[in-house]
Amino acid sequence: MTDNTAITIVRADGRTVDQLRPITITRGWSKNAEGSALIEFGNTRVLCTASLTEGVPRWLKGEGKGWVTAEYAMLPRATNTRNSRESVKGKVGGRTHEISRLIGRSLRAIIDTKELGENTIVLDCDVLQADGGTRTAAITGAYVALADAISWAKSEGIIPAKAQPLTGSVSAISVGIIDGVPMLDLPYVEDVRAETDMNVVVTGDGKFVEVQGTAEGAPFDREELNSLLDLALVGTYELSEIQREALKN
Amino acid sequence: MTDNTAITIVRADGRTVDQLRPITITRGWSKNAEGSALIEFGNTRVLCTASLTEGVPRWLKGEGKGWVTAEYAMLPRATNTRNSRESVKGKVGGRTHEISRLIGRSLRAIIDTKELGENTIVLDCDVLQADGGTRTAAITGAYVALADAISWAKSEGIIPAKAQPLTGSVSAISVGIIDGVPMLDLPYVEDVRAETDMNVVVTGDGKFVEVQGTAEGAPFDREELNSLLDLALVGTYELSEIQREALKN
Amino acid sequence: MTDNTAITIVRADGRTVDQLRPITITRGWSKNAEGSALIEFGNTRVLCTASLTEGVPRWLKGEGKGWVTAEYAMLPRATNTRNSRESVKGKVGGRTHEISRLIGRSLRAIIDTKELGENTIVLDCDVLQADGGTRTAAITGAYVALADAISWAKSEGIIPAKAQPLTGSVSAISVGIIDGVPMLDLPYVEDVRAETDMNVVVTGDGKFVEVQGTAEGAPFDREELNSLLDLALVGTYELSEIQREALKN
Amino acid sequence: MTDNTAITIVRADGRTVDQLRPITITRGWSKNAEGSALIEFGNTRVLCTASLTEGVPRWLKGEGKGWVTAEYAMLPRATNTRNSRESVKGKVGGRTHEISRLIGRSLRAIIDTKELGENTIVLDCDVLQADGGTRTAAITGAYVALADAISWAKSEGIIPAKAQPLTGSVSAISVGIIDGVPMLDLPYVEDVRAETDMNVVVTGDGKFVEVQGTAEGAPFDREELNSLLDLALVGTYELSEIQREALKN
Amino acid sequence: MTDNTAITIVRADGRTVDQLRPITITRGWSKNAEGSALIEFGNTRVLCTASLTEGVPRWLKGEGKGWVTAEYAMLPRATNTRNSRESVKGKVGGRTHEISRLIGRSLRAIIDTKELGENTIVLDCDVLQADGGTRTAAITGAYVALADAISWAKSEGIIPAKAQPLTGSVSAISVGIIDGVPMLDLPYVEDVRAETDMNVVVTGDGKFVEVQGTAEGAPFDREELNSLLDLALVGTYELSEIQREALKN
Amino acid sequence: MTDNTAITIVRADGRTVDQLRPITITRGWSKNAEGSALIEFGNTRVLCTASLTEGVPRWLKGEGKGWVTAEYAMLPRATNTRNSRESVKGKVGGRTHEISRLIGRSLRAIIDTKELGENTIVLDCDVLQADGGTRTAAITGAYVALADAISWAKSEGIIPAKAQPLTGSVSAISVGIIDGVPMLDLPYVEDVRAETDMNVVVTGDGKFVEVQGTAEGAPFDREELNSLLDLALVGTYELSEIQREALKN
Repeated sequence: MTDNTAITIVRADGRTVDQLRPITITRGWSKNAEGSALIEFGNTRVLCTASLTEGVPRWLKGEGKGWVTAEYAMLPRATNTRNSRESVKGKVGGRTHEISRLIGRSLRAIIDTKELGENTIVLDCDVLQADGGTRTAAITGAYVALADAISWAKSEGIIPAKAQPLTGSVSAISVGIIDGVPMLDLPYVEDVRAETDMNVVVTGDGKFVEVQGTAEGAPFDREELNSLLDLALVGTYELSEIQREALKN
Repeated sequence: MTDNTAITIVRADGRTVDQLRPITITRGWSKNAEGSALIEFGNTRVLCTASLTEGVPRWLKGEGKGWVTAEYAMLPRATNTRNSRESVKGKVGGRTHEISRLIGRSLRAIIDTKELGENTIVLDCDVLQADGGTRTAAITGAYVALADAISWAKSEGIIPAKAQPLTGSVSAISVGIIDGVPMLDLPYVEDVRAETDMNVVVTGDGKFVEVQGTAEGAPFDREELNSLLDLALVGTYELSEIQREALKN
Repeated sequence: MTDNTAITIVRADGRTVDQLRPITITRGWSKNAEGSALIEFGNTRVLCTASLTEGVPRWLKGEGKGWVTAEYAMLPRATNTRNSRESVKGKVGGRTHEISRLIGRSLRAIIDTKELGENTIVLDCDVLQADGGTRTAAITGAYVALADAISWAKSEGIIPAKAQPLTGSVSAISVGIIDGVPMLDLPYVEDVRAETDMNVVVTGDGKFVEVQGTAEGAPFDREELNSLLDLALVGTYELSEIQREALKN
Repeated sequence: MTDNTAITIVRADGRTVDQLRPITITRGWSKNAEGSALIEFGNTRVLCTASLTEGVPRWLKGEGKGWVTAEYAMLPRATNTRNSRESVKGKVGGRTHEISRLIGRSLRAIIDTKELGENTIVLDCDVLQADGGTRTAAITGAYVALADAISWAKSEGIIPAKAQPLTGSVSAISVGIIDGVPMLDLPYVEDVRAETDMNVVVTGDGKFVEVQGTAEGAPFDREELNSLLDLALVGTYELSEIQREALKN
Repeated sequence: MTDNTAITIVRADGRTVDQLRPITITRGWSKNAEGSALIEFGNTRVLCTASLTEGVPRWLKGEGKGWVTAEYAMLPRATNTRNSRESVKGKVGGRTHEISRLIGRSLRAIIDTKELGENTIVLDCDVLQADGGTRTAAITGAYVALADAISWAKSEGIIPAKAQPLTGSVSAISVGIIDGVPMLDLPYVEDVRAETDMNVVVTGDGKFVEVQGTAEGAPFDREELNSLLDLALVGTYELSEIQREALKN
Repeated sequence: MTDNTAITIVRADGRTVDQLRPITITRGWSKNAEGSALIEFGNTRVLCTASLTEGVPRWLKGEGKGWVTAEYAMLPRATNTRNSRESVKGKVGGRTHEISRLIGRSLRAIIDTKELGENTIVLDCDVLQADGGTRTAAITGAYVALADAISWAKSEGIIPAKAQPLTGSVSAISVGIIDGVPMLDLPYVEDVRAETDMNVVVTGDGKFVEVQGTAEGAPFDREELNSLLDLALVGTYELSEIQREALKN
């Protein structure tokens, strides 16, 4: 692949290879949560809520630090065909576990738990409609919900007004190689065809929090890896702008 | 309580005792399901999807009949304070079971399973935001999703165009007695104060499918029961009009 | 249906439409429990035990109130064909959950938890043999076990002798419409044929605690509902007499 | 211990060391099962039902053999203090598993599975009241239920009239050493004090099916072991007489 | 069977009927545990670790006594064909429960919990390769791990140097009757053919802790039982020598 | 960090920053499995077995392709302090799920499922002793077990002698940044201090199968990412040599 190639390729949905799908963030979608955002990456829709409670889990008590964790889930008919509920099956699946852990780590990367005080924030990311990129949408939306929950806690005096629990912002995007061409922000139809699939979590100042690349088809070389990282930085730069816009006033 | 009293009482949200909250039905909210509706009873928001698949559960095979079932659930932060996920707890709670069964029975009451053919419809009712009346909103919205799934199946030739699987429509409302006064469509703040709480499921032609009355505080007499049923019929009459409107063209 | 019809109908077991099956209450059947009753509605046999322990669940501590709860279950071969044990399946089914909750609510309706003091009573209702009406037999028998457990606690000084935790008595009966005719106390063969099935929980002074009517076949109208409630009041009146008799001396 | 000692010792309930508690077998206690017996060893009461169904588990299909298995359980308030239900805990405990397996093995020891044909018998042994020796009562009662289920199957033509699936009878008893003295058929108060506890399963012709001896306090020597086996043979000889009596016509 | 017969019989692996398989104990195989042993009975390999922690379970607090418990498990491919993991199935099977309980009881039989102080020792016995006799190898190896954990605790001052928590040693062996001949230490090929199978747990001074005999095929008589016990005492005598040797310096 | 720095740094265990711990592969450690390897990275010990069975899971039937999957687990006392068994907790944890999935994907990357035919290989990777890098040791050892299982299947004629199910080899290593210095193959003491932790799975010809980098402390930049990838390629090159050596004759 060369830049020349990339410029001329047009995808099924009309995008160029380095273009995001339309991104929408509806801040405060949920009236009950301390912070919330309905985020859409094209047809992917994730409801992110941040629940802030005073106190921390037992293993963290007395250390003067807070805790941030996340749970990801999908409605049974978020997808093209219905999946059984994990509650009915009686156990959380491997994929759900893996994504929940990824979201939690990603958000903790921009939190100073000392500044948070002994408070706990649970980020629930529920996929209402799935069309690829649900975990990256979840991370990007969860940041907005988290920021709002922290603002709320400051306004309520639960966190001191001067505290700075957020050390930055964070967003995430998927990239992949399809027919040898690296592409940004894969919808479901592209995702299933990708030879290599990578999810990249990046801070607002362009540093990596997570890089998770997987060869679905053929193993990838160093050059392909670099092209994917380049694209991911383009995408997360834009996403962090959209987050900043959404959080204005 | 007398009718005179009822006329003059104004509730916290400005409604009269026999008035529904604003009802909104957004048909087709979900792109992936065969039928779907986002239904709102005031601040209560339930996403109802209907998933139609060919074939029936093993115990029903070869009888030439279809099957309709339902699953109800609540997002962890649909409520004022966060509830643990049932998938994480590893079991479905009693309340969830009970409501899922109620929704299933209610919808089966207006289905002719022979006309449905050997097809299965699963109705998923996920509460995105809760403010009282989630089970009744779920039944009312599930009917719309169900009707659309059946139309889709006819258009696809999965169900013969002449088949009439729907024998009518169905909707549901909660009623309750608060400080001795029967009231219609209780939001959360009224629900927790109700001495008696009743959920009534009614067909479009005004017959009862389910009557579930519970004395939360004091036992109730025959007269109170009758007042509650009167109110419920007023509410479900209106709901069935709103359903009809939503399903136009 | 008219009264004329009802008078002449004779059921498979020889009863009239408004007649209960033979009811037997063996008080104190279990030597270990603080209160117990083996109750029989015809061939339906339910062992009800009341276990009273000092203290309350954590969420109720320090409020000076007691707690009453119930668990219903069925032996695997209580029924015509064997059912798998819920312990072996690893989860409690929806029907079991639903009935346990119903029994708990019904008994709490005649308990003044303040008078009970910080004590907990668990009512276990285990169906040893099932022939319809197990949940109503369970409620009716659980009341006797509960009353005896409270007497025991008074005699032991756990509850003050002057306290009045029981605000009344409670019993329950099933009613249903079969071939258009409302009938009282349905055995299994009638239950499966009923178009409408209703369980009614009534206090000793004739007020409603729970009304749970379900259209199994066709939806029912107001008149049918009224006939069923009439029958239920006849049945529960008799049951409360039998309870009183059983609890003498 | 010598015989001299044994003769003079009188136990709390007035029995001699080699005397069984009063044993009662109520055959056919359950109307729904193919065979059933309510068995009582003093205050220990176990309801044993035998459920016979045509066909065998998948792993046994086509071998022309039947299958016999058992499940043991205890009602939550069978004991002095209430135990949580295993269905509610979501798992079967180790003790329950162990006893269920013991009962199954014991009954299979007197079954010729070829003669049974491709039929399955499940023996449910539910302890309604516990006062020591529940597993041995369960085995002894299960044999009666099993024998009746087989008679029923012959009368129904499910098993050929000439088939002899039962190769003998089986019963079981507990023995133990208390204060150095071997004793037969321990009630709960003796069981908790026993230094050594042994459950012995014996055929009607006096051969061993299971010998399970456990040093609860001090390890035991060969002589003590022999004394316990002697007592067990005395007890099971009597039990097999009682079984024979119960099964007459 | 007579002694004459026994002398001339040679088994598939060349052993005489009263001969153990080659026994190896690799003490301290695991670097992380307070005590550990990899024990081999022929091809059967069990890794036994002893984890000592200060404190006791809640129900034992404040009694000045310690606690010893055990957990047995098998790797999925320890056996000839792969078994599903119990963690994946979501529950511990009956056999696993039964053996874990047996190991725990056996080791507690030679522990003076008062001398142990309020410390807990968990013995994990994981079967890495199975060829019959895994539970008896587990008990025999667990004793070595236990003894080392106690030595460690003394050297660390967690248990006083003068305390004597071990009241003796314990080992176990399987014996069985094959084609009418009692044999010692059965590998898998013999185990599946045994008419009677017995596991015997014996202290270092030759007293019984557990005797678990099961008629797999035909019931056994008193003489056969005696032969099996004789063999078991021969085997455990040798095993206790091997344990003593392993624990030297 | 510069190369100059790296050369002079000596780690707690005496290694240079780009040096692996001593690696040992004991091929065929398990007698029962079709392929097996006990692999050691320093004190980390993982037993890898490959179980090959004919046939494939239902969802793959009739496609002429095989299936390779993996399960990872840890013995409770593989670690410094004991962890509860997942079988006892009744559910598989998120970390276990995540690693099992990683191993499965890694091995499938070098398998041509068409060449495998309709056969299934399950790779069980059980950590017997943990000291960092268990997942990378598991992948590296699982390859050896997999290769041997395939050789066995060819020798048995289950897979045609000419088939080439293996398209290459695969190994994995952990790398991390500690005090700003990138290091290869982290033992536990280094792993807990790492700011960034990365697991890299690489084929025998140096292409990437998985790249999983996580900022545990501070986010990392492109340069650091590159240094880590360089180190990982050094390590996996060596590991693939060791694998080749182990698989000779």
